[in-house]
Amino acid sequence: MSSIRVIELAKLLESEYSGDGNFLIQGMNSLQDAKECEISFIVSEKYKDLLEITKAEVILAPIVLKGVFTAKKTYIYCTNPNVVFSKIVKIFSPPSPEYTHGIHTSANVDKSAVIPSSCHIGPNVVIERDVNIGNNTRILAGTYIGEGTKIGDNCFVYPNCVIRERVQIGNNVIIHPGVCIGSDGFGYESTSSGIVKIPQVGSVRIDDDVEIGANSTIDRARFGTTWIKKGVKIDNLVQVALNVEVGENSMLIGQCGIAGSAKIGSGVIIAGQAGISHGLKVGNGALIAGQAGVTQDVPEGARWGGTPAMDVKAGMALICCPASLQKQKQKIIALEKAIKGLQEELDKLKK
Amino acid sequence: MSSIRVIELAKLLESEYSGDGNFLIQGMNSLQDAKECEISFIVSEKYKDLLEITKAEVILAPIVLKGVFTAKKTYIYCTNPNVVFSKIVKIFSPPSPEYTHGIHTSANVDKSAVIPSSCHIGPNVVIERDVNIGNNTRILAGTYIGEGTKIGDNCFVYPNCVIRERVQIGNNVIIHPGVCIGSDGFGYESTSSGIVKIPQVGSVRIDDDVEIGANSTIDRARFGTTWIKKGVKIDNLVQVALNVEVGENSMLIGQCGIAGSAKIGSGVIIAGQAGISHGLKVGNGALIAGQAGVTQDVPEGARWGGTPAMDVKAGMALICCPASLQKQKQKIIALEKAIKGLQEELDKLKK
Amino acid sequence: MSSIRVIELAKLLESEYSGDGNFLIQGMNSLQDAKECEISFIVSEKYKDLLEITKAEVILAPIVLKGVFTAKKTYIYCTNPNVVFSKIVKIFSPPSPEYTHGIHTSANVDKSAVIPSSCHIGPNVVIERDVNIGNNTRILAGTYIGEGTKIGDNCFVYPNCVIRERVQIGNNVIIHPGVCIGSDGFGYESTSSGIVKIPQVGSVRIDDDVEIGANSTIDRARFGTTWIKKGVKIDNLVQVALNVEVGENSMLIGQCGIAGSAKIGSGVIIAGQAGISHGLKVGNGALIAGQAGVTQDVPEGARWGGTPAMDVKAGMALICCPASLQKQKQKIIALEKAIKGLQEELDKLKK
Repeated sequence: MSSIRVIELAKLLESEYSGDGNFLIQGMNSLQDAKECEISFIVSEKYKDLLEITKAEVILAPIVLKGVFTAKKTYIYCTNPNVVFSKIVKIFSPPSPEYTHGIHTSANVDKSAVIPSSCHIGPNVVIERDVNIGNNTRILAGTYIGEGTKIGDNCFVYPNCVIRERVQIGNNVIIHPGVCIGSDGFGYESTSSGIVKIPQVGSVRIDDDVEIGANSTIDRARFGTTWIKKGVKIDNLVQVALNVEVGENSMLIGQCGIAGSAKIGSGVIIAGQAGISHGLKVGNGALIAGQAGVTQDVPEGARWGGTPAMDVKAGMALICCPASLQKQKQKIIALEKAIKGLQEELDKLKK
Repeated sequence: MSSIRVIELAKLLESEYSGDGNFLIQGMNSLQDAKECEISFIVSEKYKDLLEITKAEVILAPIVLKGVFTAKKTYIYCTNPNVVFSKIVKIFSPPSPEYTHGIHTSANVDKSAVIPSSCHIGPNVVIERDVNIGNNTRILAGTYIGEGTKIGDNCFVYPNCVIRERVQIGNNVIIHPGVCIGSDGFGYESTSSGIVKIPQVGSVRIDDDVEIGANSTIDRARFGTTWIKKGVKIDNLVQVALNVEVGENSMLIGQCGIAGSAKIGSGVIIAGQAGISHGLKVGNGALIAGQAGVTQDVPEGARWGGTPAMDVKAGMALICCPASLQKQKQKIIALEKAIKGLQEELDKLKK
Repeated sequence: MSSIRVIELAKLLESEYSGDGNFLIQGMNSLQDAKECEISFIVSEKYKDLLEITKAEVILAPIVLKGVFTAKKTYIYCTNPNVVFSKIVKIFSPPSPEYTHGIHTSANVDKSAVIPSSCHIGPNVVIERDVNIGNNTRILAGTYIGEGTKIGDNCFVYPNCVIRERVQIGNNVIIHPGVCIGSDGFGYESTSSGIVKIPQVGSVRIDDDVEIGANSTIDRARFGTTWIKKGVKIDNLVQVALNVEVGENSMLIGQCGIAGSAKIGSGVIIAGQAGISHGLKVGNGALIAGQAGVTQDVPEGARWGGTPAMDVKAGMALICCPASLQKQKQKIIALEKAIKGLQEELDKLKK
């Protein structure tokens, strides 16, 4: 932990500020949780009310909103407070743990494996035959890397992961604890002599800049490749089944599941606990709501929710059913009254 | 395994009994599965019918229901059979495995770590710099404890867990196999130059008497703290995202997920596979049904279900929709008939 | 990787063929992904159109469909292409990694454990007291086997699994990475002095030919046994709670969850992300749709979906609600018009 004056921080960020330049910032926090001495940030006008209640004296704000906020604070202005705030983090946060170069004496590394001296191979790591690891990659304690697997440069594999044989991993990939990559796909054939396991001899390919959350699982293909493309971000406890493809920069959020052979486009967001059924295509830029159960192909850019998933507007109609039913019930009662009235008048006329 | 006579057991439990005091109990089981020689228990009158079919000769029953059960059995009476039964368990169950004090020779423990001699540190455990562990805590094989993490007294950490850096864990905490605590929150910022990872520099705090089920994941905060308060019980495969707070004695049941920054009150039950969306508040004592998808704040004491979740009664209206629609359809047909009849009468009159 | 001529492969499979017997097959793939030199397969007439677009020159086809396909290809005929294709896999796939017999020097094996010399016990495996392992069983790196657990012949336990004390596992069982078997059931009793943990002293029994997917969790029984019967296949991230029974050859697909004491029949399929509530019975041969939430007993052979789950046809009525409501709305508007018309006519008559 450290401290810095407003005027120094503004200089460091090449930003302008208004207010008390001598104020000593001693930490950072969200608007809700900040103490007076902590800097916080606001990204949009809609959180304006939080400025009235936050204890933070110094606020990082978007330059485009300069003059908009009336709360009496010291403001530092920048183009994207969310991104700049991540830089400030380095000033106030405890440093990340460092992992020394080299192979720990308790690691079991096959002599055929290629491991540059810039790598960290932690305690009890197991590296099988013909594994190839890039520069500056860190493999933490207890992780298992199967035969013939290749991992690129600058990757970070947390403890107790299992990456099975013949998996291809690109550069700058982050793999959180307990992740399993390359497990057998769930494939069986019902035959007259019972359920028979279908060999799962394909592989998994993970491209550059992918991040995979804790305890998620990515199955190998039956044959061919389960393919996670560049920049994909996967949250915790996500299931990606055999032969799936996930397009560039898509996000799979906590506990969602993608069934076998589904093809997810690029820039897609699949929210928490949603499921995509076998073999479906989800178009580029689609947004699948939390807990949605997708049972048919999703067009590009669509916003789908519900189970079975449909356009979120159509889904809302379903949710509105009880209210609509109630309205129609009232109308039917009115109609019944009107008809009764007409009948009475008719009867009078006939007399 | 052991055996005990009814009269001896009743004495041990300081309870009264009716029936055969000499009967030799040789085990314990549920009403459905018990053999004649096994003791079973009943907690409420509503399971009365099971007494007619159970083979168990000896039944532990609530003292308040003495005389209510007519099935010919030997009864031992106590205030809470469920709790007393747990005591009987110790008589008939195989003893739990014991873990010797001390640090296994294969463990990798940094010399700066503080570990009392009353602890068990199992094979291949990795303990990084500045870790602090309390008395009588057992850390089983293959578990990883990151730099600066603190674990209290009498904790039990099962094999192959990963607890990352700067996590704070209280006393009497039980952590089941494969749990990950302190993984990075799922936080990214879309910028003109692509998706940028937001540093996750906060921590996790787990208070006393918490239990966390197998393969569950608890993310660290972006900054500040993900906080699991005293007495919280978390089942298997549960996801708790960054900056979440869970109030005292709440229960998160199997495969449920809590999205980032949600605040769960105390005494809340979130049933299996339910999901709570980002930033929501769930009031004290609320009950969220299985698979519910909560998309707005939940009031204290509410019982919500469905997706999007609402009061369970309102949810039932939705389920009743098809039946209501059918009823209205019949009424509309009747109205159409009535109008046709009126028209015919009118036409006659006009003639 | 290898290559084989059509005539040689047909001979090997004892099958007939039509077309170019000399064609050199150099791999295998799905119809969509195959290159010209790769063999592919078709299992049913409904995929006929794929034959027009596939690049594969050689197609494995069902003998019963001989003559049905008009696409100009070389065909090899067999009774079940799916099963035969799995045999071809062995010709073209890289061989599976081999695991040498014996106990790795870094494994921690209690001297009371019984381990035949035909077993592979990998690096850092921990085997506690009185464990008994069958012939040809492979236990991979970092896996933990608790006191008194018994594992049969020809089993394969992948890295970093945790199998706790007194678990019984049959023959030919495959357990994927990160699986936890025998964790405590989620059982608590609310008492006047707070939430009390109920001892979980039962066990888990896994019968022959079971397969359990990566990071799945199977809790031990409170007392008695959580029982997974012969031939059951469990996918990744599945939760099986305390005292559950799963009947022969049933399938639990990715991320589904079975709550405590539920009894699943034989030949049941529970699809992805579905949940079965506490204590329910699911009849033999039932099919539970993805994301279904089962809240009552399911009859034999039923096909249920939705939350709360019901017969899939009844469920469809619910999905059709918005459309039906719209139709009824139109009818009510027509009725209102008709009544207005009648009233006007009546008014004229009265004048």
